[in-house]
Amino acid sequence: MNNNGKIYVVGIGPGNREQMSLLALRAIKESDVIVGYKTYINIIEDLTEGKEVINSGMKKEIERCDITIDEAEKGKVVSIISSGDPGVYGMAGVILELVAKRNSDIEVEVVPGITAANAAAASLGAPLMHDYAVISLSDLLTDWEVIKRRIDCAAAGDFIITLYNPRSKGRVTQIEEAREIIMQYRKPTTPVGIVRNAKREGEEVFITNLENMLKHKIDMFTMVIIGNTNTYKLNDKMITPRGYFK
Amino acid sequence: MNNNGKIYVVGIGPGNREQMSLLALRAIKESDVIVGYKTYINIIEDLTEGKEVINSGMKKEIERCDITIDEAEKGKVVSIISSGDPGVYGMAGVILELVAKRNSDIEVEVVPGITAANAAAASLGAPLMHDYAVISLSDLLTDWEVIKRRIDCAAAGDFIITLYNPRSKGRVTQIEEAREIIMQYRKPTTPVGIVRNAKREGEEVFITNLENMLKHKIDMFTMVIIGNTNTYKLNDKMITPRGYFK
Ligand SMILES: C[S@@+](CC[C@H](N)C(=O)[O-])C[C@H]1O[C@@H](n2cnc3c(N)ncnc32)[C@H](O)[C@@H]1O
Ligand SMILES: C[S@@+](CC[C@H](N)C(=O)[O-])C[C@H]1O[C@@H](n2cnc3c(N)ncnc32)[C@H](O)[C@@H]1O
Repeated sequence: MNNNGKIYVVGIGPGNREQMSLLALRAIKESDVIVGYKTYINIIEDLTEGKEVINSGMKKEIERCDITIDEAEKGKVVSIISSGDPGVYGMAGVILELVAKRNSDIEVEVVPGITAANAAAASLGAPLMHDYAVISLSDLLTDWEVIKRRIDCAAAGDFIITLYNPRSKGRVTQIEEAREIIMQYRKPTTPVGIVRNAKREGEEVFITNLENMLKHKIDMFTMVIIGNTNTYKLNDKMITPRGYFK
Repeated sequence: MNNNGKIYVVGIGPGNREQMSLLALRAIKESDVIVGYKTYINIIEDLTEGKEVINSGMKKEIERCDITIDEAEKGKVVSIISSGDPGVYGMAGVILELVAKRNSDIEVEVVPGITAANAAAASLGAPLMHDYAVISLSDLLTDWEVIKRRIDCAAAGDFIITLYNPRSKGRVTQIEEAREIIMQYRKPTTPVGIVRNAKREGEEVFITNLENMLKHKIDMFTMVIIGNTNTYKLNDKMITPRGYFK
């Protein structure tokens, strides 16, 4: 039975408060309960007064979603926080699937946010002005063979390639293999943008190329954007021309 | 010579005021001059008091950017408005290229926004939870052969496919050809989400499939999202599972 409980799956954008949407702010203000990692909750801490805050840092994804649904079933308005957009390697899908699995009729509203690829692109200049592919290098839930094939297809199609989850402590070789695959289609001088902590504290922006990209620090806080065959470096910016100045 | 003029290339998101970021709002407030289409300026009209507003509806893209740079060179702070994210088929690239061409040293800040693919996805449920391709079907500036090849590669790689500019009054066959290509790789029952005016007034959301998608109204205010081989319809939502519930 619906009891006015509601779930907002909230994207807060890349991490700076200023990159949040007004709707994300309102959803959080309206909520009785906030579920999320401590680092994300920190940037909205002043909005959480009088609310129940569940730091889900120690919990598994499914558990975190189950808690969210439990609270909403009690009649509460609950915001579960994702960085970037919750529909891009975030919590939106799992929440919707779990609500259905539990035969719950709790209302779920997905609140979109600026995803890391677009945030990183803004800091690099305009690398995504043409067709692009969004790929996660995490093989926790996806076979590496499937991911490799996607990289190959994206490279063959001359897509600009944005890589999420490029490397973590325990997962280091994927970015090397990805680069090898792309090198079969693109020149070593193809521009590559590396943005750590895009649009949040500690941002680091580098423009390098396929040849040299692995010399830069790439970790789980990094977006890697590989240009297409037309991408070029213009002063300190990375640009993929749309074709106005042919 | 720099004279404190500055250009913000501002993404205002899909169109509802609430989907704007706080930074986009601040950039507009800080500006002396606002350049943009009337429809976009309408949603921020109350912020434009005392500012010069240049409705660029009648102007060509390059002209619009030239005016923006002219005003900034006079020492003004100028916001040029894009819908969605200015780095996705928007104004970011042209502005940066033109500033360089004119040997100007005006500062340009790209203010990212929620792009139409992510806005439409939020209204559909969670169709973009796995790797996806972003493709524009407009062949004004890109050879149709290049676009067709991209569609083919994206379909072969089992990417979810998001289509911008799917159809306009003068350009109607591309979406039909795109569908034909994708049909070579995916079942006719593959879910397709069609969102008109995502996250703005007059929103219309449909979940159909490859077989029937062309029966729906698709125009220049529409995003089309074609599922991958795992995408399914769950009640009234379109979901691409990430793989938690295998
Ligand atoms: C599990 S995904 C979450 C993506 C998020 N939902 C989004 O839409 O941005 C985590 C990965 O996103 C990327 N990422 C997220 N925020 C970032 C930021 N501010 N700067 C750079 N990369 C970021 C990194 O590649 C990181 O490993
Ligand atoms: C020139 S592109 C601009 C894209 C924009 N910069 C962005 O990031 O969303 C215009 C196309 O974007 C899509 N679009 C933009 N806003 C939309 C919305 N609110 N709902 C549906 N489609 C939208 C449509 O396919 C339209 O033909």
